[in-house]
Amino acid sequence: MSRLSLSLVAALGGLSLLPARFAPETPLRGFTAASSQTERDWEAKLDAIPDPARLRANMQRLSARPHHVGSPYDSTNAEWILAQYRSWGWDAHIETFYVLFPTPRERLVELVAPTRYKAKLEEPTLAVDPTSGQKAEQLPTYNAYSADGDVTGPLVFVNYGIPADYDELARHGISVKGAIVIAKYGGSWRGIKPKVAAEHGAIGCLIYSDPGDDGYSDGSVFPNGPMRPAQGVQRGSVEDMPTFTGDPLTPGVGATKDAKRLAIKDSPVLSKIPVLPISYGDALPLLEAMGGPVAPRAWRGALPITYRLGAGPARVHLVVKSNWDIKPIHDVIAKLPGTTEADEWIVRGNHHDGWVNGAADPIAGQVAELEEARALGELYRQGWRPKRTIIYAAWDGEEPGLLGSTEWAEEHAGELQQHAVAYINTDGNGRGYLGMSGSHSLEDFINGVAKDVTDPETQASVWARDKARMAVAAADGGGRGGRGENAAGNGDIPIGALGSGSDYTPFVQHLGIASLNLGFGGEDQGGVYHSIYDDFYWYTHFSDTSFVYGRALAQTVGRAVMRLADADVLPFVFTNLARTATRYTRELQALRDQRAASIEATDAAVKAGDYALTSDPHEPTLAPATEVPPPQFNFAPLLNALDTLDAASARFEKAYGAWSRAADTADAVLHAVNADLLRSERELTSANGLPKRPWYRHLLYAPGFYTGYGVKTMPGIREAIEQNEWSDVDAQIARVAAALTREAALVNDAAGKLEAAK
Amino acid sequence: MSRLSLSLVAALGGLSLLPARFAPETPLRGFTAASSQTERDWEAKLDAIPDPARLRANMQRLSARPHHVGSPYDSTNAEWILAQYRSWGWDAHIETFYVLFPTPRERLVELVAPTRYKAKLEEPTLAVDPTSGQKAEQLPTYNAYSADGDVTGPLVFVNYGIPADYDELARHGISVKGAIVIAKYGGSWRGIKPKVAAEHGAIGCLIYSDPGDDGYSDGSVFPNGPMRPAQGVQRGSVEDMPTFTGDPLTPGVGATKDAKRLAIKDSPVLSKIPVLPISYGDALPLLEAMGGPVAPRAWRGALPITYRLGAGPARVHLVVKSNWDIKPIHDVIAKLPGTTEADEWIVRGNHHDGWVNGAADPIAGQVAELEEARALGELYRQGWRPKRTIIYAAWDGEEPGLLGSTEWAEEHAGELQQHAVAYINTDGNGRGYLGMSGSHSLEDFINGVAKDVTDPETQASVWARDKARMAVAAADGGGRGGRGENAAGNGDIPIGALGSGSDYTPFVQHLGIASLNLGFGGEDQGGVYHSIYDDFYWYTHFSDTSFVYGRALAQTVGRAVMRLADADVLPFVFTNLARTATRYTRELQALRDQRAASIEATDAAVKAGDYALTSDPHEPTLAPATEVPPPQFNFAPLLNALDTLDAASARFEKAYGAWSRAADTADAVLHAVNADLLRSERELTSANGLPKRPWYRHLLYAPGFYTGYGVKTMPGIREAIEQNEWSDVDAQIARVAAALTREAALVNDAAGKLEAAK
Repeated sequence: MSRLSLSLVAALGGLSLLPARFAPETPLRGFTAASSQTERDWEAKLDAIPDPARLRANMQRLSARPHHVGSPYDSTNAEWILAQYRSWGWDAHIETFYVLFPTPRERLVELVAPTRYKAKLEEPTLAVDPTSGQKAEQLPTYNAYSADGDVTGPLVFVNYGIPADYDELARHGISVKGAIVIAKYGGSWRGIKPKVAAEHGAIGCLIYSDPGDDGYSDGSVFPNGPMRPAQGVQRGSVEDMPTFTGDPLTPGVGATKDAKRLAIKDSPVLSKIPVLPISYGDALPLLEAMGGPVAPRAWRGALPITYRLGAGPARVHLVVKSNWDIKPIHDVIAKLPGTTEADEWIVRGNHHDGWVNGAADPIAGQVAELEEARALGELYRQGWRPKRTIIYAAWDGEEPGLLGSTEWAEEHAGELQQHAVAYINTDGNGRGYLGMSGSHSLEDFINGVAKDVTDPETQASVWARDKARMAVAAADGGGRGGRGENAAGNGDIPIGALGSGSDYTPFVQHLGIASLNLGFGGEDQGGVYHSIYDDFYWYTHFSDTSFVYGRALAQTVGRAVMRLADADVLPFVFTNLARTATRYTRELQALRDQRAASIEATDAAVKAGDYALTSDPHEPTLAPATEVPPPQFNFAPLLNALDTLDAASARFEKAYGAWSRAADTADAVLHAVNADLLRSERELTSANGLPKRPWYRHLLYAPGFYTGYGVKTMPGIREAIEQNEWSDVDAQIARVAAALTREAALVNDAAGKLEAAK
Repeated sequence: MSRLSLSLVAALGGLSLLPARFAPETPLRGFTAASSQTERDWEAKLDAIPDPARLRANMQRLSARPHHVGSPYDSTNAEWILAQYRSWGWDAHIETFYVLFPTPRERLVELVAPTRYKAKLEEPTLAVDPTSGQKAEQLPTYNAYSADGDVTGPLVFVNYGIPADYDELARHGISVKGAIVIAKYGGSWRGIKPKVAAEHGAIGCLIYSDPGDDGYSDGSVFPNGPMRPAQGVQRGSVEDMPTFTGDPLTPGVGATKDAKRLAIKDSPVLSKIPVLPISYGDALPLLEAMGGPVAPRAWRGALPITYRLGAGPARVHLVVKSNWDIKPIHDVIAKLPGTTEADEWIVRGNHHDGWVNGAADPIAGQVAELEEARALGELYRQGWRPKRTIIYAAWDGEEPGLLGSTEWAEEHAGELQQHAVAYINTDGNGRGYLGMSGSHSLEDFINGVAKDVTDPETQASVWARDKARMAVAAADGGGRGGRGENAAGNGDIPIGALGSGSDYTPFVQHLGIASLNLGFGGEDQGGVYHSIYDDFYWYTHFSDTSFVYGRALAQTVGRAVMRLADADVLPFVFTNLARTATRYTRELQALRDQRAASIEATDAAVKAGDYALTSDPHEPTLAPATEVPPPQFNFAPLLNALDTLDAASARFEKAYGAWSRAADTADAVLHAVNADLLRSERELTSANGLPKRPWYRHLLYAPGFYTGYGVKTMPGIREAIEQNEWSDVDAQIARVAAALTREAALVNDAAGKLEAAK
């Protein structure tokens, strides 16, 4: 198929509400006309299999009891999942690792001055919600990997607890040294909060869910509505995942029974200070007791109080003590064997462990994965044979720190780097729009998949619905960036870049395996994340209640897996990667200029005495610290590399187009081309990893060192600029340039092979 | 003085913290070297006179009892002010007008479904606050000029109640037809809320003070802090002031005893529906009882509830009935006679009526004005003789609708248009920064004044402090627009344009008299506006408690009045006007493009079905109405006029520079030049006024028809573009172009006279 007709399809898809079945039958990317028709036929069969009733029944089964790491029901679920795979004809087994997983034995939060209040630290049983009363099996509310401690100090409110918040506190002359900070959930991954607090000298950290973020502000609270009730608490890990993920004691290697382990005191990823999550019911008396300057407008939540910064007069006594146990985790690993390309693996996963009953997180995604597996097993039974080997995984231990996926990826690093084409992740599911993030060489591919899946609410494609959302956002925003402007040049919807927060991290960022993360959401909201109320009752009242989006997820990911497994030429499209890398580069150039303008303006204002002149004597403020402005950086190597990659990508598209029209290339040539393509994401990594965190090897995508989940693209360069490490920037630019140059060479090599075959 | 040395002073002023007394003695604008020295000597004497102790005593005296229109203490205050002026040697009298001033005889707000709640509608007496218990004299909480009515209907939450909010409601399929709306105070002038509600078919309107706007969100509530307590209510007028100000029954003419009056039913500026203000204490049960979609994030306030749009199930019964009486208002008018230019008048005013005790509003400004008057009287006694006549006014009836100032301006329209050089207004005062708004031909002048007034907190000039605030805002905002970029080209701080909300409106917008509005603020906040708690206790605990900013205000305005009264050449600088008009023109060109982009994007998204695709079936939304995008407009006449004005302004500055160096021009020439300058603001008006509101004659500044206080610059053009009246735009551009061309001719004429004198 020519590029022209591809564009035409994209344009028609964008303007029309026609369901995919009426679209002209152009061959799927990576397929010949004939193999495409076969693929479409099998995909149509796939669509018919996932069953909302089974999704519902499986969710009820898997979320019936708390199933966190080390719990009886966690093992039970793993065994049950294993049995399911086997019953569908998969070659399945359980792989067990042994990980550090602390659970609390003592928790105390009490206000000791100027008044007294002892925090409840307990989510109440609700009569209407049958699983909310399983107290004996529930993990208490806590943050895994908190330091043990017994501390008392004045309370300081730090907003979301990111570095900029401490700059603001400094302007008010407020230090957290020797203090206990209270931070809102949100604005960053939770593990950043105690990490940054400890860096600033705090001795303890409380994290609470403000009702302005996921409580009554957004809707009625559970059980009347989906939002977080007054005593609802978000559990969660505070392992320093931006340093590495997985078992804190076995960085870089699988946590097998006899793996070499760090002593607990030597693990660099445990919180340095005690930290506990609390509800807004428990936070209210603490915040109300605070004095000091009124918090900036942007810091305030939805509690009916004057938010103040402190320090004090509120003083808090905080105790956290844990049982620091090693627990087993149970990954379920299942294979469908490939035929001609059995050594090329398509890996797909979703975790099965939850913090408590975990219906939305992760079971909504786990049941979709199970329905995919059942469907693929059924198609296999009917005679479908994937070219490539398919590996389905149900990870354990995601919640504490992507333990199951990381340990498995580390244990199998060599073979994965040799064999893995791609990793596709999900992690729960909701109602609404298809969220797509991942490696940009797969951007065009996943757009193509989304065009062929029907949205259950509108009967349009899920792709058309995403596109409509972009158009509406642009129109409602005044028309800046429309359908055309927001889209990638070929009409594809731009996909997000991967930061962290789910099991794709060891694959894409540690091993350099092209990855995607998918899931529906954006309609309905919720405030039960990581609480006892994330359960079957909540999900079936307030989320994808009819499980039609669970079916759509199984149809989407199942289709993606099949296409990758069946394609003649792996559907990597590097023009999307080149375009995205160019955008990142422009952002970084602009970032330098912004940093320069900001630092220079601040410096000038400090020197002119402007901050002194604008300090209110009734509530004095201090000038910000002055900084050295950035020099100009040498972006030339990166711009040259982008030119090279642009040219290589265009050459490959041209060669692909010729192959697509002729489709008479020998299998051996295609095998050699695919062998190149399979390695393409590896070229974007560096064995030395990122500065200060060598475990993270991808040079384009990483979780931010100070955002946690939020992605930093071209992180070596970006974080050097953000953190004023001017002398590192040119070297980081050179590393990214070298990676993109290697990528261009690989793409050229693949293009050359395709051309030579003509 | 040359332009070069002027720039040098500005630059030095900008960079240095030196008090004004060490600045090089360049002649003041409009003065010769000799007359400048004399002026500076008198201004130094002025500075020494205003006395914080007197400011405090006078505030205590004037705010001792409620002093609204028609109250006994309102007359008492007028008589007392009159006596003060006379005691200081002024020629003073009281001028009385007779105005429509309704006061409530029946008020009821009750929730009748799904639960019942009867609103208190009462601000409680506080033991610590001695005047809060003067119940017999206090006006109840109400909105003056509300329609009488007894209505019951479902409640709809309309955010701030501006037109865009109704567009948002329409997207949710919610109509206010037959409903009672509840709007937050803020976001627009209060009179807009019932006006827009009535336009959309609502039958009643409640306006409440959300704690997120002036309540506990910003600080402790009164009496523990300055912010609005739960039962605090903002009274206020809902006269349709964007149509005309002043007595609703005598538009355009003075409301003298025997003036011809409209029948009440025929006045176009009375609210069409009943409206009452309520406290957040009273609003909470109403808002809590509401159903319907969750309000958009930007609409939510700080009450601990889920804000919902309605309509219903909450139903409200609202009753408002008033005594529609004619009441006398008492303007105190005082004169100091001019000498050689007695027929040129400098007018200065601040109102004396309050909604209740009104300490901040208006007495903090009134006592500064009194101290100025005492100081000028004292200087006069010492031998100072202003060239021009000075008229000081203490207006009555400002709160219901600028009644005292408007009726006086209308009654004396002819002589004011002939004689008035400028009008300077204040209206209350606080602590912090000098706020400067007004006619841009006076921008350079008031910058010069501000450079010579010492800020009591920092001992820098109030100008340097304003400049520092701009620099800090720019630096904190990332360095966009710094000292240099934000400032007018000659280093002047840009002053705001005048909308409405105080007594300058009849002068600048009806009569075309160059005006300034001045006041300190920006440090400390308050939530007692138009409540019984705006009193001496509140002011002396939470605002300019030591009255040093009251003194600074008297020094600022007194100095401005003296300079205008004494100048050899009136200190109008038209380069600032030309620069500002150019900026407005660029904004309007950009506004057209934004409207076009927005309308086109919306239209495209509607046609593509994007809104239908993104409607959540659980909570459906509708597409916005499509609109016809704007054509290109003919801005050429305006751009040509700006070129002409630019050239004329530059020519005048050159001529002024030559005069300033020579300073040997005959008085008769200066008299003729000043006669031109005195008329300069008149050229910016049109006898036909603005579309649909002929009372407003200024073509550059008006309160927005749908913002009320907020200014619309070049309002004929801007509102035509904002309201899609495409066919009017070119005609409105031509009117503004003609006015600026007339202005350029006047400036050329004045320049020619100055040049000829050489």
